[in-house]
Amino acid sequence: MAKEIKELTSRDENYSQWYNDLVIKADLAENSAVRGCMVVKPYGYAIWEKIQRQLDDMFKETGHVNAYFPLFIPKSFFSKEANHVEGFAKECAVVTHYRLKNDPRGKGVVVDPDARLEEELIVRPTSETIIWNTYRGWIQSHRDLPVLVNQWANVVRWEMRTRLFLRTAEFLWQEGHTAHATREEAIEETVKMLNVYACFAEQYMAIPVLKGVKTASERFAGAEDTYCIEALMQDGKALQAGTSHFLGQNFAKAFDVQFLNREGQREYVWATSWGVSTRLMGALIMSHSDNNGLVLPPKLAPYQVVIIPVYKDDAGLAVLNERVAVLSNELKALGISVKYDNSLNKKPGWKFAEYELKGVPVRLAMGARDLENGTIEVARRDTLTKETVPVDGIALHVKALLEDIQRNIYRKALDYRAAKTITVDSYDAFKEKIETGGFLLAHWDGTPETEERIKAETKATIRCIPLDGDLTPGVDMVTGKPSKQRVVFARAY
Amino acid sequence: MAKEIKELTSRDENYSQWYNDLVIKADLAENSAVRGCMVVKPYGYAIWEKIQRQLDDMFKETGHVNAYFPLFIPKSFFSKEANHVEGFAKECAVVTHYRLKNDPRGKGVVVDPDARLEEELIVRPTSETIIWNTYRGWIQSHRDLPVLVNQWANVVRWEMRTRLFLRTAEFLWQEGHTAHATREEAIEETVKMLNVYACFAEQYMAIPVLKGVKTASERFAGAEDTYCIEALMQDGKALQAGTSHFLGQNFAKAFDVQFLNREGQREYVWATSWGVSTRLMGALIMSHSDNNGLVLPPKLAPYQVVIIPVYKDDAGLAVLNERVAVLSNELKALGISVKYDNSLNKKPGWKFAEYELKGVPVRLAMGARDLENGTIEVARRDTLTKETVPVDGIALHVKALLEDIQRNIYRKALDYRAAKTITVDSYDAFKEKIETGGFLLAHWDGTPETEERIKAETKATIRCIPLDGDLTPGVDMVTGKPSKQRVVFARAY
Repeated sequence: MAKEIKELTSRDENYSQWYNDLVIKADLAENSAVRGCMVVKPYGYAIWEKIQRQLDDMFKETGHVNAYFPLFIPKSFFSKEANHVEGFAKECAVVTHYRLKNDPRGKGVVVDPDARLEEELIVRPTSETIIWNTYRGWIQSHRDLPVLVNQWANVVRWEMRTRLFLRTAEFLWQEGHTAHATREEAIEETVKMLNVYACFAEQYMAIPVLKGVKTASERFAGAEDTYCIEALMQDGKALQAGTSHFLGQNFAKAFDVQFLNREGQREYVWATSWGVSTRLMGALIMSHSDNNGLVLPPKLAPYQVVIIPVYKDDAGLAVLNERVAVLSNELKALGISVKYDNSLNKKPGWKFAEYELKGVPVRLAMGARDLENGTIEVARRDTLTKETVPVDGIALHVKALLEDIQRNIYRKALDYRAAKTITVDSYDAFKEKIETGGFLLAHWDGTPETEERIKAETKATIRCIPLDGDLTPGVDMVTGKPSKQRVVFARAY
Repeated sequence: MAKEIKELTSRDENYSQWYNDLVIKADLAENSAVRGCMVVKPYGYAIWEKIQRQLDDMFKETGHVNAYFPLFIPKSFFSKEANHVEGFAKECAVVTHYRLKNDPRGKGVVVDPDARLEEELIVRPTSETIIWNTYRGWIQSHRDLPVLVNQWANVVRWEMRTRLFLRTAEFLWQEGHTAHATREEAIEETVKMLNVYACFAEQYMAIPVLKGVKTASERFAGAEDTYCIEALMQDGKALQAGTSHFLGQNFAKAFDVQFLNREGQREYVWATSWGVSTRLMGALIMSHSDNNGLVLPPKLAPYQVVIIPVYKDDAGLAVLNERVAVLSNELKALGISVKYDNSLNKKPGWKFAEYELKGVPVRLAMGARDLENGTIEVARRDTLTKETVPVDGIALHVKALLEDIQRNIYRKALDYRAAKTITVDSYDAFKEKIETGGFLLAHWDGTPETEERIKAETKATIRCIPLDGDLTPGVDMVTGKPSKQRVVFARAY
C-alpha cells in the first residue's frame, strides 16, 4: 500500500505517541469503525501467526489439545461464580435480540422487538463458565482426568480506554482450561504453563520476564492464585505478558463438576486456566523498537531477510534477479525466510527505510559493483550497522547473524531491565525512583490497605511476589510492619 | 474420556440419526448450552486444524495473506448494500448493551439499562461490510491493488434449525476478501479460488465435487455471481461445500472505495469473496463413513496409524513397548503420524472398536506370536480388511497403504456419484428419480418461476449450472421452453 514514510515521533519526546505512530506506520494494526475494536493488518497478523504457531507447538509438546467452545455465554452462567461475575459483569457485550427488520419508517433496518432472547447472551470475556458447564458432561471418573484443553479464540471486554494491541474491546488470545484430580497436580500444571510462557517470552520474543504470583487484589476473578510473567518496557513501565491461574475447585463447585476418585468417592475437580493475547504484540513492539521503527526478533519476523537490488537499468536488474534467485535458494535451504523486493516503482533508498521501519532483522543489498567484486552489503536492524562481505558463504554468515541478533536484542533488554531494577528501602526513595520507571524491589506488609495506599499515592502497583526472589525478611517501607520478602512494584500498562 | 462404545444407528435405517450418533460417539462435537452453538471437541478440532493448515498453505501459495477484522459490525453498515442486508438481517445476533449490573431484586445480574449502545452492533454473519469500510482507507491508487486478504474467524447466523457441523448458529470459517482494478481480474480470482477449493476437496478430503455457478435465486446476498462446489452425500443429498463470489463493484459503491487508475481516473474497485466453513466436517463425515464409524482420508486424519499391543502380562508389554518404539520411529521418519495406545485400563478388542469408530486409516496390532514370527497385523479402515505381514519393511508398506487408502476412498465416492448422476428428460422421470436421491441433469428454461415450481413440488433445487457441463441445448422438462444446457438438480443439505 503506497504511502509516504514519515518520521516517527521520537521515543524520548513522547513514548506513547511513538508507539501509536509505529503501530500504524509499520502496518501492524489500525482502529476500526467499531469503538475499541482493531483491525490487525496483514503484517501485524503475520507476526501474530508466528507467535501462535510457536505457542501451539509448545502446548502440544506439553500434552494439550485444542478445542472450540461457544462465543456466547448465557447470562445465568455468569452469576454462578461470585467473584467471576463481579470481575467481568461491568465490561461485557450483551446480545439481547436475534433479528433485524426493515424500519417501518423506511430508514434502513431496526432491531426487531419481537425477536428478543429469553435469556441474554454475553459475548465471552473469558470462557471458564461455558467450559466448566461443558466439562460436567466430560468428567465422571478419575480415568477422565486430566483434561488438558486449549482454545484459540476472540474475546470481548468492553474497555473504556483502549489502545492498539495493549487494550482493545475485542482481542485474540488462547485460553487453556485444564481439569485435574488433585490440588497438587493442578498447581503443578499452573506453574508448568507459567514456565512455558516465560520460556516463549525469553527465547522467542527476546523479552526477559519476571515470574511471580499476584497479590489478592490483582488476582483473576475466580482464581485462588494468579501466576504471571511481567516484562519491563523501554519507558520503564511494566507489562503483564501472560497469566496462569490456579482456580482451585471454584468452577467445579459452581458448575457441579465431580468425579469418582480411585477410592470410589465423589470429589470436586481441580482447575487451572492460562492465557496470552494479542497484547504480546504490544510487548514485542515496546521492548525492542527504536526511533527508526520496529525491531523484530528473527524467530518471530515474518521474513528474516530482505534482499534489495540496486540497479541502473533493466539489463542490470535482470542480472541481479538471476544472481539473487540462487542466493535466495541458499538462504531458504537453511530455513531462513526471505523476501526479494525488486519492485520497480520504489527506489532502493525508500525500500531501505521501509524495511527498517518494519523491523526486518537483516537487509542484503546487491549492486553492479558487488557483482563485479563478488560482494554483498549486509545490514543488521538491531545495531543499524552494515558491512560489505564476500557473497561466497553468505547464507551461513546470515544464519549466524540471525542467531546473534536474537541473542543481542534479548541481552539488550536484559541489561536495560537490570539497570532499571532497583532495591528501595524507604518510601521517600520509592516515590522518587518510581518517577523514572523500572521495577522497584521493596518490602510490603502483605495487606491490601498498604498496597492500595501506595497505588493511590504513586500509581505504582505490585506487579508480583517474585517466585525466585530473595526471601530475606524486612519491614514494610510505608508502615514499618514485618515483611516476608521484597515484592516487585512498578507503574504498569 | 471413558465411555461404552454402543452401536451406531445403521445408515440404511436412519441416515440422519446415524450422522448424529457418529458425530457424538466419535467425539467430534456436541451441542452446547447455547441454542444452536456447538462445542467442537478435541478430536473433531484436530481434523479441523488439518483442514485449516492445508487450506492456509494453499491460500498463501496463491499470494494471499491473513488479517483480522472486528467481530462486530455497526448496524448502519449493514444497510448499505441492499441485497446484503436483505439476505442477513433476519438471522443475526444483535448486541445492544455493554454492561451488566447486580439485580436490584438481588437475583444474580441483569442488563444495565444505562449501558445501551447508541448504535447496535451485529455479530458478523460475514464480513464484507466491515472489510470494505476498511478497504476505503487502504486503497487509493492502482498501485494499492490487488488486495488479497483472508481471515480465519467465527461467524454467527441465527439459524432456527441447526445440526452439528452442517448448520450451526456459530461456526468457524475462513473468508477471503479481495480487491481488484478490473472486472476481468476479479472474475479470474473468483474462479481461481473455486479451483483451490475443488482441488482441496478432491485431493485432501477425497470428495469429488462439481464446479458450477449458482442461479440468481441461490446467489450470495450482494454478489453478481456465486460459484460453488457441490458434493454428493451417501444418502443421495447434495451438500454445498464451498462458495466463491464475484461481487462486482457492489461493495465498493456501498462503501465508496475508489482508486486512481493508470490513466489518472477514479474508478470503483472490483471485489470477490470466498469461504469454506466447519460445514466441511459434515461433508467429510457423510462422504466416507460407514456403520462402524468414521472413515478418514489419511491426509486429514489426526493420526494416520494406531498401534495396539496385544499382551498377557507386564513382561510381555515391556517387550512390545520396546519393539514398537523402534517401529514408531521408522513410521515417523516417513512423515506418518502415529499413536501408540498401550493404556492399561482397556482391552485390545475395545481399542480396536474405538479406533475403528474414530476412523484411523491404519491399525497395527502386535502380540507375542508376532514378535516370534517377525510379523505384524495390518488392518485398513476403508475396506475393513486385515492381513499379517512381515514387520521388516512395514514402514514403507504402511506409507504405500495410506496412499492407496486416500485414492480408494476418493474412487469409491466418485463411483457412487457416477452411479447417482442421472440424465433426465421428463418431469415425470425427474419426480420419480429424485425420490432416491442423486444429481439429476435436466434442462431448465432459465426462469426463477420454473425453478421455484420444481422446488415446491419436489424439494429439489438447482445446485449449479455446471462449469464443465455438456453445452447441448434442449427444452425445459417442465415448460418445454428452450434451454441452453442441462443444470444439476438435487435435494440438498
